[in-house]
Amino acid sequence: MSEKLGFPLIALNFKVYSQAMGEGAVRLAKIAEEVSKEYGVSIIVAPPMIDLARVVAEVEIPVFAQHVDPYKPGSHTGSILAEDVKAAGAVGSLVNHSEHRLRLADIGMVLERLRENGLIALLCTDTVETTKAGAALGPELLAIEPPELIGTGVPVSKAKPEVVVGAVEAVKRINPSVHILCGAGISAGDDVAKAIELGTEGVLLASAYVKAKDPKKVLSDMAEAALKAWERR
Amino acid sequence: MSEKLGFPLIALNFKVYSQAMGEGAVRLAKIAEEVSKEYGVSIIVAPPMIDLARVVAEVEIPVFAQHVDPYKPGSHTGSILAEDVKAAGAVGSLVNHSEHRLRLADIGMVLERLRENGLIALLCTDTVETTKAGAALGPELLAIEPPELIGTGVPVSKAKPEVVVGAVEAVKRINPSVHILCGAGISAGDDVAKAIELGTEGVLLASAYVKAKDPKKVLSDMAEAALKAWERR
Amino acid sequence: MSEKLGFPLIALNFKVYSQAMGEGAVRLAKIAEEVSKEYGVSIIVAPPMIDLARVVAEVEIPVFAQHVDPYKPGSHTGSILAEDVKAAGAVGSLVNHSEHRLRLADIGMVLERLRENGLIALLCTDTVETTKAGAALGPELLAIEPPELIGTGVPVSKAKPEVVVGAVEAVKRINPSVHILCGAGISAGDDVAKAIELGTEGVLLASAYVKAKDPKKVLSDMAEAALKAWERR
Amino acid sequence: MSEKLGFPLIALNFKVYSQAMGEGAVRLAKIAEEVSKEYGVSIIVAPPMIDLARVVAEVEIPVFAQHVDPYKPGSHTGSILAEDVKAAGAVGSLVNHSEHRLRLADIGMVLERLRENGLIALLCTDTVETTKAGAALGPELLAIEPPELIGTGVPVSKAKPEVVVGAVEAVKRINPSVHILCGAGISAGDDVAKAIELGTEGVLLASAYVKAKDPKKVLSDMAEAALKAWERR
Repeated sequence: MSEKLGFPLIALNFKVYSQAMGEGAVRLAKIAEEVSKEYGVSIIVAPPMIDLARVVAEVEIPVFAQHVDPYKPGSHTGSILAEDVKAAGAVGSLVNHSEHRLRLADIGMVLERLRENGLIALLCTDTVETTKAGAALGPELLAIEPPELIGTGVPVSKAKPEVVVGAVEAVKRINPSVHILCGAGISAGDDVAKAIELGTEGVLLASAYVKAKDPKKVLSDMAEAALKAWERR
Repeated sequence: MSEKLGFPLIALNFKVYSQAMGEGAVRLAKIAEEVSKEYGVSIIVAPPMIDLARVVAEVEIPVFAQHVDPYKPGSHTGSILAEDVKAAGAVGSLVNHSEHRLRLADIGMVLERLRENGLIALLCTDTVETTKAGAALGPELLAIEPPELIGTGVPVSKAKPEVVVGAVEAVKRINPSVHILCGAGISAGDDVAKAIELGTEGVLLASAYVKAKDPKKVLSDMAEAALKAWERR
Repeated sequence: MSEKLGFPLIALNFKVYSQAMGEGAVRLAKIAEEVSKEYGVSIIVAPPMIDLARVVAEVEIPVFAQHVDPYKPGSHTGSILAEDVKAAGAVGSLVNHSEHRLRLADIGMVLERLRENGLIALLCTDTVETTKAGAALGPELLAIEPPELIGTGVPVSKAKPEVVVGAVEAVKRINPSVHILCGAGISAGDDVAKAIELGTEGVLLASAYVKAKDPKKVLSDMAEAALKAWERR
Repeated sequence: MSEKLGFPLIALNFKVYSQAMGEGAVRLAKIAEEVSKEYGVSIIVAPPMIDLARVVAEVEIPVFAQHVDPYKPGSHTGSILAEDVKAAGAVGSLVNHSEHRLRLADIGMVLERLRENGLIALLCTDTVETTKAGAALGPELLAIEPPELIGTGVPVSKAKPEVVVGAVEAVKRINPSVHILCGAGISAGDDVAKAIELGTEGVLLASAYVKAKDPKKVLSDMAEAALKAWERR
């Protein structure tokens, strides 16, 4: 993974916002690529599933799927397999995002399927307790996101610093090889800096970038803040 | 819809069989196109979601998605929207396949979302009772598939003719504008003929085509049998 | 069913409100029984699942379960079967409430399981379209409840009369043997009267009764309004 | 917990087998109580949800629920709350059984709800990996049950000893305060002995007891074997 991703890391979930579908997905991915190169900060983009291959073809930064189903190739209808995601050229996938929660048994299976296909897992969790469980499962990346703050503009790094700190500690104790991010409400460079000061290695965000009037400005500010906070550690 | 689809109709669900991913999806779609042109019979293909745009680009027969989520563009992660499917060039979608069952309220929403995007719904049901409900919802196409026969090679048209007949009658009574197909266990031309004799307007199948040693032979036999049975009606 | 239920009908869903558990369930059921006898109006109560048998033992009005799983006796864990509900002495069950949505195939199975056990189904739907599907499935009772109004105090009978009228017409056309109620936001006698004027045969409500300071007063007003509106039809 | 449960422990899941409903639940619970007293071995029974209070009233051994929903009292329909289970007199609940799998976030919430109500959690997992996650969540009891062996009569302790050993080691490393059981296919005293030899503190079983011609004989053999294996440790 070290060859593909560096830290601090900014992960951008495009969800299925109207601004981020089709041409919009390509445009937002290219802006992310520019910022990544300009600042030398690692940025992941996760476009809508249907646009995955198209975005991969247009940018050199790491592209993630937003979801993978817990199945092997076979008799399943309407599912997204790790094999598909790999073939599309993505390098990893979000797992268990709060808008696509999975059963524990299925998370276990998805992580296995990603591993078998050489894909990186970015597992999402919601509390310190489930972060412990998530860390024990050993994904490469883990993002704690209290769902009640998602899309609010109220950053978890400020509203619930104790949750971020608790998650960072839990990961260190249970599985220090897991890289921990935080998400929910991350809107500005300041929120990113605070997240890194609390011990995370980056952030996961969506609307603040995708729905921004000037996405390049927003992301540049975040990249700069991330790097400065990283140096201070 | 009349411009795009004719009857009898053969709908091919590629699922996520290893034979039907990536290059395999294109190959199987092209064979279906050849057979469709050769016999003048209407054939739909439903490739894996990730391969949708790619298959659309390679064939002229109608391409369907295997599933669409009940959402509008917005804050949803890892979902497939009707807008995506439309943009990829597909003309419709399977809905509520036995391997991707939906809640009734979500089926209502998915049908609305397909309609808003000018996409055709092929709704799957499992019993005469749920076929009544399905017909009342008014999809363009409806396929009754007793799930216990899927993948068995035991055709519903022979093992449970009363279910097929009951479904055909239910649709006629409740919503005669719905075109009814049947599926599950359809393996050979003979099964297709029997399905049409029982009053359906076509079939939905998967493994018998996708996993065939000679898919062209299998599909040609089905197309021929479908046409002959159709003429005898 | 005619022996057990009359119309107009008031169905009270106790949910799992703290006011409606254990002793509270018995108390609220007894008040409902008093009002039912006093006004001669048919009232159903649906207490929390764990309190079902206890409530049945204390009142003579019809007691419903809030949910039944789509299974036969066998290898299922943590499920509620129609056989259990029957043995507890309940006479029916809510099905597909907006807080416990079911897949279409499972609704079909639940209705079959209730029928096999001589239990009455009160199927909930959310739109005119899904009400058509619901009517086609032939439950004894059907309640249309736009979920966005549940618990708001804004009555469906006033906020969305066209939805209620559309549902009433759909039921008449597709399956006139189904008795139709409406729910969501029903808070006062006036809302009940309006619902009946729009063509329903009663209402389904929860918080306005369970969380009332004076539940007897609220329910008495509703019973009186229901009877007057019924006479005017 | 030490006052209520001892080890080795035999946990009996009655599921919703026809033999284990209503009177059957009471009968099977009483037999379990007899065996528990006769051999001095700790036995838990988990009857169908509807029979919970009734079974609690009839026996003195610990009674568990089969499932609890991840909610607080409020606007939820057809749910089973920890408060209900507590009020019924049960002392704990199965969580995430393979026939009632939960999302990771919901497992976190259920464990919190059980804790708040002074109830013991018996968390089920399916693989060594998900057992690590389960241990990190800190339930009092954890049972590893490879779902493919449930109901087969092929005991996990013999068919997949490496899974049992792996789970035991994972628990010791991540959270040694968790008591680990194993399940799936446990049919005879010999299987129980083997499970304990592999490092577990007991077993979880269902059909071998519930569907036995002579449940007392089966359970007595298991109790005896458990005690002997326990002494040899």
